[in-house]
Amino acid sequence: MRFFSDNAAPVHPAVFAAMQAADAVDTAYDGDGLSKRLDARFSELFGREVAALWIPTGTAANSLALAALCPPFGGVLCHRDAHIQNDECGAPEFFTHGAKLLLCDGPGAKVTPETVRKTADAIADDVHRVQPRALSITNASEYGCVYAPDEVAALGALAKARGWRFHMDGARFANAIVHLGCTPAELTCDAGVEVLSFGFVKNGGLSAEALIFFDADLAEDTKRRRKRAGHLLSKGRYLAAQIHAMLDNDLWLETARAANDAATMLAEAAGARLLHPVQANEIFLRATASEAAALRARGFDFYDWAVGEIRLVTHWASDRQEVAALAGAIAAL
Amino acid sequence: MRFFSDNAAPVHPAVFAAMQAADAVDTAYDGDGLSKRLDARFSELFGREVAALWIPTGTAANSLALAALCPPFGGVLCHRDAHIQNDECGAPEFFTHGAKLLLCDGPGAKVTPETVRKTADAIADDVHRVQPRALSITNASEYGCVYAPDEVAALGALAKARGWRFHMDGARFANAIVHLGCTPAELTCDAGVEVLSFGFVKNGGLSAEALIFFDADLAEDTKRRRKRAGHLLSKGRYLAAQIHAMLDNDLWLETARAANDAATMLAEAAGARLLHPVQANEIFLRATASEAAALRARGFDFYDWAVGEIRLVTHWASDRQEVAALAGAIAAL
Amino acid sequence: MRFFSDNAAPVHPAVFAAMQAADAVDTAYDGDGLSKRLDARFSELFGREVAALWIPTGTAANSLALAALCPPFGGVLCHRDAHIQNDECGAPEFFTHGAKLLLCDGPGAKVTPETVRKTADAIADDVHRVQPRALSITNASEYGCVYAPDEVAALGALAKARGWRFHMDGARFANAIVHLGCTPAELTCDAGVEVLSFGFVKNGGLSAEALIFFDADLAEDTKRRRKRAGHLLSKGRYLAAQIHAMLDNDLWLETARAANDAATMLAEAAGARLLHPVQANEIFLRATASEAAALRARGFDFYDWAVGEIRLVTHWASDRQEVAALAGAIAAL
Amino acid sequence: MRFFSDNAAPVHPAVFAAMQAADAVDTAYDGDGLSKRLDARFSELFGREVAALWIPTGTAANSLALAALCPPFGGVLCHRDAHIQNDECGAPEFFTHGAKLLLCDGPGAKVTPETVRKTADAIADDVHRVQPRALSITNASEYGCVYAPDEVAALGALAKARGWRFHMDGARFANAIVHLGCTPAELTCDAGVEVLSFGFVKNGGLSAEALIFFDADLAEDTKRRRKRAGHLLSKGRYLAAQIHAMLDNDLWLETARAANDAATMLAEAAGARLLHPVQANEIFLRATASEAAALRARGFDFYDWAVGEIRLVTHWASDRQEVAALAGAIAAL
Repeated sequence: MRFFSDNAAPVHPAVFAAMQAADAVDTAYDGDGLSKRLDARFSELFGREVAALWIPTGTAANSLALAALCPPFGGVLCHRDAHIQNDECGAPEFFTHGAKLLLCDGPGAKVTPETVRKTADAIADDVHRVQPRALSITNASEYGCVYAPDEVAALGALAKARGWRFHMDGARFANAIVHLGCTPAELTCDAGVEVLSFGFVKNGGLSAEALIFFDADLAEDTKRRRKRAGHLLSKGRYLAAQIHAMLDNDLWLETARAANDAATMLAEAAGARLLHPVQANEIFLRATASEAAALRARGFDFYDWAVGEIRLVTHWASDRQEVAALAGAIAAL
Repeated sequence: MRFFSDNAAPVHPAVFAAMQAADAVDTAYDGDGLSKRLDARFSELFGREVAALWIPTGTAANSLALAALCPPFGGVLCHRDAHIQNDECGAPEFFTHGAKLLLCDGPGAKVTPETVRKTADAIADDVHRVQPRALSITNASEYGCVYAPDEVAALGALAKARGWRFHMDGARFANAIVHLGCTPAELTCDAGVEVLSFGFVKNGGLSAEALIFFDADLAEDTKRRRKRAGHLLSKGRYLAAQIHAMLDNDLWLETARAANDAATMLAEAAGARLLHPVQANEIFLRATASEAAALRARGFDFYDWAVGEIRLVTHWASDRQEVAALAGAIAAL
Repeated sequence: MRFFSDNAAPVHPAVFAAMQAADAVDTAYDGDGLSKRLDARFSELFGREVAALWIPTGTAANSLALAALCPPFGGVLCHRDAHIQNDECGAPEFFTHGAKLLLCDGPGAKVTPETVRKTADAIADDVHRVQPRALSITNASEYGCVYAPDEVAALGALAKARGWRFHMDGARFANAIVHLGCTPAELTCDAGVEVLSFGFVKNGGLSAEALIFFDADLAEDTKRRRKRAGHLLSKGRYLAAQIHAMLDNDLWLETARAANDAATMLAEAAGARLLHPVQANEIFLRATASEAAALRARGFDFYDWAVGEIRLVTHWASDRQEVAALAGAIAAL
Repeated sequence: MRFFSDNAAPVHPAVFAAMQAADAVDTAYDGDGLSKRLDARFSELFGREVAALWIPTGTAANSLALAALCPPFGGVLCHRDAHIQNDECGAPEFFTHGAKLLLCDGPGAKVTPETVRKTADAIADDVHRVQPRALSITNASEYGCVYAPDEVAALGALAKARGWRFHMDGARFANAIVHLGCTPAELTCDAGVEVLSFGFVKNGGLSAEALIFFDADLAEDTKRRRKRAGHLLSKGRYLAAQIHAMLDNDLWLETARAANDAATMLAEAAGARLLHPVQANEIFLRATASEAAALRARGFDFYDWAVGEIRLVTHWASDRQEVAALAGAIAAL
């Protein structure tokens, strides 16, 4: 019973079906009908004209976004526990040609205007120090915490005031939306976000994230950067198909809701053991080594986060009975 | 009736079936059983110990290979019509951090020891000139021509004598093998090739090429470069599954043979119109604008290569009746 | 008697004197009075507001200019014999993060609107091909030939029409100006040049070129790139002092005139042996191996350019008697 | 009376004299006699065979060293207050093509084996995290503190055990040597340092640092990187001359001793105000805003380090009477 990561979840049957339906020969790369309809599809979702590119991985989506927003000699403000800082083997540095991540603090892996200002204000404004040029936040965060629209907007206002571009890593964007009950626009463009990495892979997709440019002009150069980075798949229609399938009938919300609900069940069982509020599909909780061993002995698989801390992750296909069993086991610790 | 590119061919049903069979939750990235078996699988195919990484695109596979073989301040000798020079939007320069492509001549987009030597010998050996560090050839070439094992070996010997690393872009490696009837090893490692981009996408796959390191140690750094470039997909098992499916029962040879056979049929119809010998699945032929228009009027779709020249490409799923119809139309021009 | 290169010429005494006069402690980097006066000094010279940065080498000046004008995924049109292509060990690729040089032809290492168009028009306008973003010319060229203002203007008009930025490598700008008798503005900003590498090192300086931005805003990012590339010397006042000394009393024209006059003397002696018109301080001439040996036997040192071709270079301090002796020796061949 | 920085100190007369003595035309770049003698000169100084390259700035020297020691996908362990982290506008990231600085703690801007281990051990050994590949320390440190040979050796042993390369930023190496009274070898190669940035510019030079490779083979690629970065000055003999002049008669030790002695005088006056032990030529001390203003009112110029903290820097040419006056003023606060 695996609660290790949503990264390894199966592919939703509707996604597979859509891929197979895309089998007819069409134009290569992103010249096919499905790829070409992505702009319109996301424009409808966000209620404004956007440009949308499929990207095979979240790492590439984030890095292409940062390359579009930050010059090689600039810096990207982000949380010190951000995925772009810790989990992408320097991909942001590779794609931006050496921009520097400027680390900020904050509980739940969420930055605040105060912590961002603190980092930025400590940087003398001269040519010797790398200057901030962009701000990147993750929603839901690395600790499964969610920025509400007003929190994003406060950061967006700060970014605008300082002349920084604003990116949101939405690898678990769907989980955040489901938790908040707001619209995608309220959490992004309405709050000042300029580029969104809109995740589908953790949420039922196979190999397609969407990179959303709220300023469509910004997407043009990224099309070249995507090709140059080897991310323009020749059979792009199979990636576009995945995204369309996830958007059809709000499947992306349904799968995220399933994951969140499972997480909530585990969170309730964990109670005072929780290290962070559970607002998406990740549960971080205190567990001694022997408690962790006890859970494993009962067949549960998960990640040891730190000494005395474990991480559980649910996903769209988490088995309800397994979740209930794990909840029971946690409560019984 | 599309003869535009093998890039847009459908995915082979066996590939899809294998992907669906990989659906059970497993370890993310390349920690799953299918990914882990790739080394052994290709070691068996080549008859020696190799390291094999799945890579989603040929562009990324080529560029990762070059980054492994050439330092940022070095040069890569290649044909002036090579895919890495003309069709990857500078991906080799991106992945190698600015290495320079050093262009060589030769008929059929094939370099020869003589043309390579000519380019290399014109470069003064000092710190002002970018020095060759690697040689990259494409087999089958951009013009559908095939290097035979002895031709590869002659280049391999030159590379070794000069201290250059040696890469083969095998986006259409299967077509070359089928044409030659030799073993994969005879065309690569036996002839001095150190890294091979082994293509599957044009030949029935969806999004998985294999990058083969004949010196397995060389693969270690590339695993980091792959991650850093955003090419380590979290659901890697679906990529590994594609490759296994293509290797099962020699499917990769069967699909390539179908493509080559269709090309041969067209080549025979084209006769004296041919610009290059047809040894794989591409046919370049002379056709006036009005002849091209006439073919299009009959429902055939293809690429205008240059003034008075067109390119036809067949693939594993090219419809035999459509091929026969096109052959007839060409013969009737 | 060395006619090998102007690169190794001595430093003009006035330059040394100005450096020593800069010895008083002042602000580090480019915060000193001499550095700060460069903008005004060059604005006066060009008759319009420009931004001017000292840069220790021509290679760095050229590469910083190209980085300011061309994105990593773009291409720089230049002559195939250009210094940036052949003599800088890939510095343009390093500073631009992998932009591609797109090679054009033309006699005397000069491109023409026709040859530039030919190269550019062969590049399909899609994301697979690196697209031209900038044009770079060298004046005087690598073969000592000079672009007249109308030739520059024709290229500037083409660049503007195509949306390319326009750079001039003026490592021997002074020699060109002296040959033409025009103003610096006529040869650059009036003709569409946006950034000029204004050379002083070959012309009497020690380690200071000037990078001139005719759009002063463009200089801001370059100040960061200069620091980031390790080219912001802490004792910058000694570089600024060199440039001021070269501009004082038109010393830069005087030294260039001396070099050009010496070259003219040699050119007259060479007569029909000349491979290119001599318009600056380089003389390329036909000489058999035994003729070259005969000159060397008489004590003259120079560069073997190619089989049957030699290069002679004069400079501001070329000894008139040595020049006369060499002229005589050439005439006597 | 300027105590702002040693970066802006004048050039030592012996350095100027040596530069003028180098005026005779010689081979360009580093082909001249003075440049060629650098290897032998430093080999003598270190008592073993080393390779030595002149580099115009400390930023470039450090960055070239790091590029030689750390791949683009690797990390460099350094103090969080290191110059390479804070004062070079991302030059290490530029030259290494995106390597990541991994920050360590420690008093006086000095790392210890414990703090380095703490940073390194927090990095999971997988492809998702940037792995340490090199360790870089600054001696004397940014706070004017000195690593003794045994401290360096302990770090060298750790680096060797972990497979990290080891670099020393010796912008103020001379001040450290003078403070310690040890040999240059004891502080570097004997203690495991593989590459040293040997500073001269802050110590009486104009524009020449030396980059010392204790493994001479490592220097070969750096010669290409130096050219590629625009740091191979054509008139290199004037840089080599500076270094020879500094080494002649141990001038480098004499000038550093003068700076250190002046600093000691100020340190004694500062007494309990000192923030760090004064072991080189920098003095960090507590001073309220009104105290700082009082010092400025008496004509002293210096840097406000932080709230309630000021930095004073002495150098080889600091006027003894001015130093005495400042010492008196500090004591009188």
